[in-house]
Amino acid sequence: MAERGRGWARAVRGLLLDVSGVLYDSGAGGGVPIAGSVEAVRRIKASGLKLQLCTNETQATRQSFVRKLRALGFDISVAQVTAPAPAACRLLRERGLRPHLLVHHDLVPEFAEIDKTNPNCVVLGDAAENFTYANLNEAFRLLIGMEKPVLLSLGKGRYYKETDGLKLDVGAYMKALEYACDIQAEVVGKPSKRFFESALAELGVPAEQAIMIGDDIVNDVGGAQQCGMRALQVRTGKYRPSDENHPEVKPDAYVNNLAEAVDIILQEL
Amino acid sequence: MAERGRGWARAVRGLLLDVSGVLYDSGAGGGVPIAGSVEAVRRIKASGLKLQLCTNETQATRQSFVRKLRALGFDISVAQVTAPAPAACRLLRERGLRPHLLVHHDLVPEFAEIDKTNPNCVVLGDAAENFTYANLNEAFRLLIGMEKPVLLSLGKGRYYKETDGLKLDVGAYMKALEYACDIQAEVVGKPSKRFFESALAELGVPAEQAIMIGDDIVNDVGGAQQCGMRALQVRTGKYRPSDENHPEVKPDAYVNNLAEAVDIILQEL
Repeated sequence: MAERGRGWARAVRGLLLDVSGVLYDSGAGGGVPIAGSVEAVRRIKASGLKLQLCTNETQATRQSFVRKLRALGFDISVAQVTAPAPAACRLLRERGLRPHLLVHHDLVPEFAEIDKTNPNCVVLGDAAENFTYANLNEAFRLLIGMEKPVLLSLGKGRYYKETDGLKLDVGAYMKALEYACDIQAEVVGKPSKRFFESALAELGVPAEQAIMIGDDIVNDVGGAQQCGMRALQVRTGKYRPSDENHPEVKPDAYVNNLAEAVDIILQEL
Repeated sequence: MAERGRGWARAVRGLLLDVSGVLYDSGAGGGVPIAGSVEAVRRIKASGLKLQLCTNETQATRQSFVRKLRALGFDISVAQVTAPAPAACRLLRERGLRPHLLVHHDLVPEFAEIDKTNPNCVVLGDAAENFTYANLNEAFRLLIGMEKPVLLSLGKGRYYKETDGLKLDVGAYMKALEYACDIQAEVVGKPSKRFFESALAELGVPAEQAIMIGDDIVNDVGGAQQCGMRALQVRTGKYRPSDENHPEVKPDAYVNNLAEAVDIILQEL
């Protein structure tokens, strides 16, 4: 149970919400909303709190991701989504990097404006079915052939839950390429501080007046706390009881689900 | 060039040879012998030196591996091959482990006698085309669902060279599963000390009278030296010039290829 009415819920002006595992469980056919979450998002908006989704989703463009969320009943606009691919495009442009993409085919349009000839880096996303043996070998060969290999990883999650079970996330494949090439990837997405700062800028609320709500103890909770935000872990999505014994990260509170978090926060407004 | 006639070649009674990248370059159609290696193996045998192949090969049973080597011209018997799968079978039996196999389909017969019902561990080999997204997710789900996940990895190589280019080796996939499950794999194969000790026992020569010859600076050279053997790195196979600046491992000598190593060793006999 959440610690109701405690200080963690006070003086809030905006919420950053993780999406998969908080709003809905992803899966075949678009996934299913988590009970109470559609109504919770509606109540956040009605309350006047600012709202921004902060996701490591890389299986779709923001446009199609928002279409899917709207079809599930969530009243969300594209501008309310902070996602790794647009952040990666900014970084590629700043540094003159030309990526080889190992990403989900539905994400490719996000990189439409980026020069991809003669690649001098690899961008790795949650490629799902594109994580084939051949594609992994191709990305590896490009990296190992570079004088100074650059690997940008859109997130570094370990795994996530879909309706048909747990799936390896991009972080596992990032580790495979890091080890094979003896390099360190640069993470674009949660838990990178720069990424949370972008999300806060888009939220328009300073860190100390924002709460992050997520199901990932390290990437959501730990990452947000390192930026000076409060952070809650929901007991939905990939949450596991052992998360409550995490050696390094302690959420400001646990809540059973988003609806419970919103109940408490709105009571404290 | 090798440092000819130096102390490293003295008082030798037996040789452990890595196979892929030393005897031949693997690849489609069985691969191709490395120039001079067939004759070098013949000269070792004629000299009276003992010979054992010490391989992390897990894409075939020892029987079919030896058939392939014989077809390439190498006069080798099954008893002269130390490989991870038989070592893993001994370990599974000792500890009452029932494996889920994520291995090359040609390796499966090595585990024919092992109880694989209701798995309580995962055995990971160089599964090659079997490294599919679905198979990796399946192995991950089994591990994450175990109270105490046990992952046995048949080697931990980063990559190897086939005739059509470099390929990710089992170590990369081991790292992916280690990270996703937050566990440490147990390595069966080079560079494990226990594995080298098995190879030395099969060679019938003590460590200080044996030389390991391989193309992998860490798994061949470093592993053998940790067991008290001398070790040479060949400049064939996956050898890269940057290996000669490895921060931790220094071979007893570099040789251009197996033939050159055998020349020098036989001169010192």
